[in-house]
Amino acid sequence: MKNIDENTITQAVIAAMRDGGNARLRKVMNSLVQHLHAFAREVELTEDEWDQAIRFLTAVGHITDDKRQEFILLSDVLGLSTLVTAQNHRKPAGCTEATVFGPFFVDDAPAYQSGDDIANGASGSPCFVTGRVLSVDGSPVASARIDVWQSDEEGFYDVQRPPESAATAEHRARGWLRAAHDGSFHFRSILAEAYPIPHDGPVGQLLEALGRHPWRPAHLHFMITAPGYEKLVTHIFRDGDQYLDSDAVFGVRTSLIAPWIRHEPGVAPDGTVMDEVFYSLQYDFVLNPADATHQHARNG
Amino acid sequence: MKNIDENTITQAVIAAMRDGGNARLRKVMNSLVQHLHAFAREVELTEDEWDQAIRFLTAVGHITDDKRQEFILLSDVLGLSTLVTAQNHRKPAGCTEATVFGPFFVDDAPAYQSGDDIANGASGSPCFVTGRVLSVDGSPVASARIDVWQSDEEGFYDVQRPPESAATAEHRARGWLRAAHDGSFHFRSILAEAYPIPHDGPVGQLLEALGRHPWRPAHLHFMITAPGYEKLVTHIFRDGDQYLDSDAVFGVRTSLIAPWIRHEPGVAPDGTVMDEVFYSLQYDFVLNPADATHQHARNG
Repeated sequence: MKNIDENTITQAVIAAMRDGGNARLRKVMNSLVQHLHAFAREVELTEDEWDQAIRFLTAVGHITDDKRQEFILLSDVLGLSTLVTAQNHRKPAGCTEATVFGPFFVDDAPAYQSGDDIANGASGSPCFVTGRVLSVDGSPVASARIDVWQSDEEGFYDVQRPPESAATAEHRARGWLRAAHDGSFHFRSILAEAYPIPHDGPVGQLLEALGRHPWRPAHLHFMITAPGYEKLVTHIFRDGDQYLDSDAVFGVRTSLIAPWIRHEPGVAPDGTVMDEVFYSLQYDFVLNPADATHQHARNG
Repeated sequence: MKNIDENTITQAVIAAMRDGGNARLRKVMNSLVQHLHAFAREVELTEDEWDQAIRFLTAVGHITDDKRQEFILLSDVLGLSTLVTAQNHRKPAGCTEATVFGPFFVDDAPAYQSGDDIANGASGSPCFVTGRVLSVDGSPVASARIDVWQSDEEGFYDVQRPPESAATAEHRARGWLRAAHDGSFHFRSILAEAYPIPHDGPVGQLLEALGRHPWRPAHLHFMITAPGYEKLVTHIFRDGDQYLDSDAVFGVRTSLIAPWIRHEPGVAPDGTVMDEVFYSLQYDFVLNPADATHQHARNG
């Protein structure tokens, strides 16, 4: 270890991790160090570029707080989030595909009853969402917990609003409810719209320097949990959106695209008489039985 | 881009960077994305591990401020700093080798005259440092600027002391001076001692989880600049130190190890009569002519 040079440094770092410590962490870090060094060699990273990278990561760290997670955003735009999600959710055909979790979920969103309006004051055209939670054999999954979250018509999640604003205090356009015994659920919300990921920070600057746009196609986030089933984290994407083919975070699956149907004023799916244009969305979610997951992971 | 899965995500990210933006950044990011994804695949990174990584990087960002740079520390302990330094300073034989810059340099250190005591009140056994700055052909380099910085006998740099302390305000054990016309220099400082890198933060936790110690062998930092020569950033390491073979940041080169000679009370090299034990260090630095650098880089 006394005379390390550019050819021997990688093995020197690996040798330093040879004994002791957590075996899994050691395996992960061994691989990380090899790939990190291979990258630096491949591009012949200069000291100025290394310095830029240090300053970039510092800026990512400094803009991150309990409301904004720029490291998740970075992982998202580099496709790492999608890769990690995909390789951890290999499922039998017929199950609803998973996609990225994103940085906008919050733990303490309000509970709702079937039929409630989860918009809770968020701006946007009314939208009535219906569907069922099913097992892969088509049988209903009773009483699944359905967490849902989305942006408003201006493209902002409530947590992106100023800390003192009503939106932040009241948790708008997010919440959770339970499916009925027959697996069905319905609630009211607002129309999902395309929006740019937060691009006023270092990740936005990176995208701009790469000539990439920050837009995501309109979508509604779902997290569905039920005993005996693999947790499903996914979005439903709005058919026809101009960004379906260039999602900034690479989250779109064809199977997750669904039509938001436009309705003239009249009677909504839940019987409400609407005096304005409204939308409806119908989607059935198919959960993966937990046993199948394990079996698949073992065989995968 | 609509139906990305774990097999197609890497190419999808690269395709998104195909047009526009900065060409060099695109090349760097293409390589980074490929290696990052290859790493995640190789270790089959789980969602929990991804989450741990996000939280780790967030903690690294949050502990970093204008006095503490935990991202540089992370780069150092992963050997990336040494690799980047080495591959950017391929020099002709006979030139003094470069090593990592480290996180403790400051821009506004005081100027000194030859013979001054740069310790400026920092605690430690007195040490008299002498040497010459030479070109690779053995001729003296006149009037080179020599920046020097080191920790005190407790292993702390001044910037690691509390913000309101005298050490921080006064810049202790750091400063710069000029070599004489014949390339010679001498100054007084304190004996360098081994010390642990800051290990009360996330990088320290990582080292502990890997069973690695945070110690660096005793050393004195030098940065030497002169018109017509490649800038030299290096350390001189204290011969006999127990950590020469396991430097936490992989900075040691055999050619950079030198003896700190112990002297009983008496007359110091600069004529000062010392009534306590003191040390002396002699080291000649050999700079790389700037033309040679460019030629070497082209051929390297």
